[in-house]
Amino acid sequence: MKTTLEIPVRSTEVDSMGHVNNAKYLEYLEWGREDWFKKANCSFDNLIARGIGLASVNINIDYLGECLKDDILLVVTSPVKAGKSSFVFLQEIFKKDSMKKVISTHVTIVTIGMETRKSTPIPSDLSKHLISTEI
Amino acid sequence: MKTTLEIPVRSTEVDSMGHVNNAKYLEYLEWGREDWFKKANCSFDNLIARGIGLASVNINIDYLGECLKDDILLVVTSPVKAGKSSFVFLQEIFKKDSMKKVISTHVTIVTIGMETRKSTPIPSDLSKHLISTEI
Amino acid sequence: MKTTLEIPVRSTEVDSMGHVNNAKYLEYLEWGREDWFKKANCSFDNLIARGIGLASVNINIDYLGECLKDDILLVVTSPVKAGKSSFVFLQEIFKKDSMKKVISTHVTIVTIGMETRKSTPIPSDLSKHLISTEI
Amino acid sequence: MKTTLEIPVRSTEVDSMGHVNNAKYLEYLEWGREDWFKKANCSFDNLIARGIGLASVNINIDYLGECLKDDILLVVTSPVKAGKSSFVFLQEIFKKDSMKKVISTHVTIVTIGMETRKSTPIPSDLSKHLISTEI
Repeated sequence: MKTTLEIPVRSTEVDSMGHVNNAKYLEYLEWGREDWFKKANCSFDNLIARGIGLASVNINIDYLGECLKDDILLVVTSPVKAGKSSFVFLQEIFKKDSMKKVISTHVTIVTIGMETRKSTPIPSDLSKHLISTEI
Repeated sequence: MKTTLEIPVRSTEVDSMGHVNNAKYLEYLEWGREDWFKKANCSFDNLIARGIGLASVNINIDYLGECLKDDILLVVTSPVKAGKSSFVFLQEIFKKDSMKKVISTHVTIVTIGMETRKSTPIPSDLSKHLISTEI
Repeated sequence: MKTTLEIPVRSTEVDSMGHVNNAKYLEYLEWGREDWFKKANCSFDNLIARGIGLASVNINIDYLGECLKDDILLVVTSPVKAGKSSFVFLQEIFKKDSMKKVISTHVTIVTIGMETRKSTPIPSDLSKHLISTEI
Repeated sequence: MKTTLEIPVRSTEVDSMGHVNNAKYLEYLEWGREDWFKKANCSFDNLIARGIGLASVNINIDYLGECLKDDILLVVTSPVKAGKSSFVFLQEIFKKDSMKKVISTHVTIVTIGMETRKSTPIPSDLSKHLISTEI
């Protein structure tokens, strides 16, 4: 399942160089993942209610271009790998007008039992939306 | 009781004009209040553990000057009024080097029962640090 | 001229209590003002290109209710007073589903000559969108 | 050259789970790099005044543990590789009390000519603080 979230760059999200700051992109990417989970009917809150947390353990992000205030961005999120209790999203950010790619990211997520604080199998209603190749 | 918290302006806290953004000051002010409550031995967490929340109901803030990256700021917090279930802090921010005042704020806070969601009397260990004039 | 900007509350914009933090609302309000200026054909960037800056000198904000992740907010911005070189916006934030008002704010803005760093008359293409009562 | 910057986790920097949000760490890491550049007498502003920008092109971050409000963090920054116009920092974040490592990151930075918008050699006063192994 691949999702696209449209986000405008707000005035308070650019730094003293006038660019979106590199930390801010991680928020945009989190919003994109939230959107993916919601569309998969497995929101963070839904999972937490079932005692399952999602821990991002690695983010590997390439900064390919700069974004300015009022740019409209598209955050495209799709799973690329899934194991027993972990999976990987590819997330890319494009400028909507030119479709120039400005961000490419891999995010590795582990499913955690909220009580045990240890990894736990991905629930089936989530895994059906993920690609089942082992990590 | 009057407290002073020293804060450096970080690179990610200035906007495209190179100034601290007006929203960021509200975070600095919250950090100053947290520090005050901690020094009063009444941290937010301590109060919440006793079923008491603190709700800021009004913030009135004068922006008197601009701050730049690497400025060292002093957030000075002191109570100026206290009623039965609400109180007012005066919070001022100064540049440490020149002692120029850049922010002057009044913050009105209500003590709330976490279960009832209604105002509840200020606990005595907190009120002893507040000035007891009625609002 | 009255404008309305729709904003979703994002996951990274709520605090440890699960509420939108009081500082974040000031960003939402700035986005609402940016939107107003753009619709008035007087964007911040346009004004700065003409040597005119906009300095918020006072923000008086009432927090009337709490907002949670995924709430859809409406930021309603309208001028209520204008003098020679300053003006006041009323900005209110509503929850879209219930139209409950959660924020009411007055923001006082001064027009500044970027070179002189002193107040300068409001340009006529901006003032025509403001109510001309003296402050 | 290796630098250490001490940072307290502030109340507004934790998310609805009570943890420091994964985007916030990128700000902490940027503050750590700023501190490194300042101690190397090559601040961002100093470089920009000489027409040289620093572009982070890749950040690869492992999240090894969680941080809570009031934790005191140590951001340790050291160069691990340097080429002609790019270099890599290793940045690690530790909890001060337990010295538990919570973040491990590699940040790849390219020196850019502000006018040409192309890569430009690392200036010698910066490169002398970097290890001269080719990337």
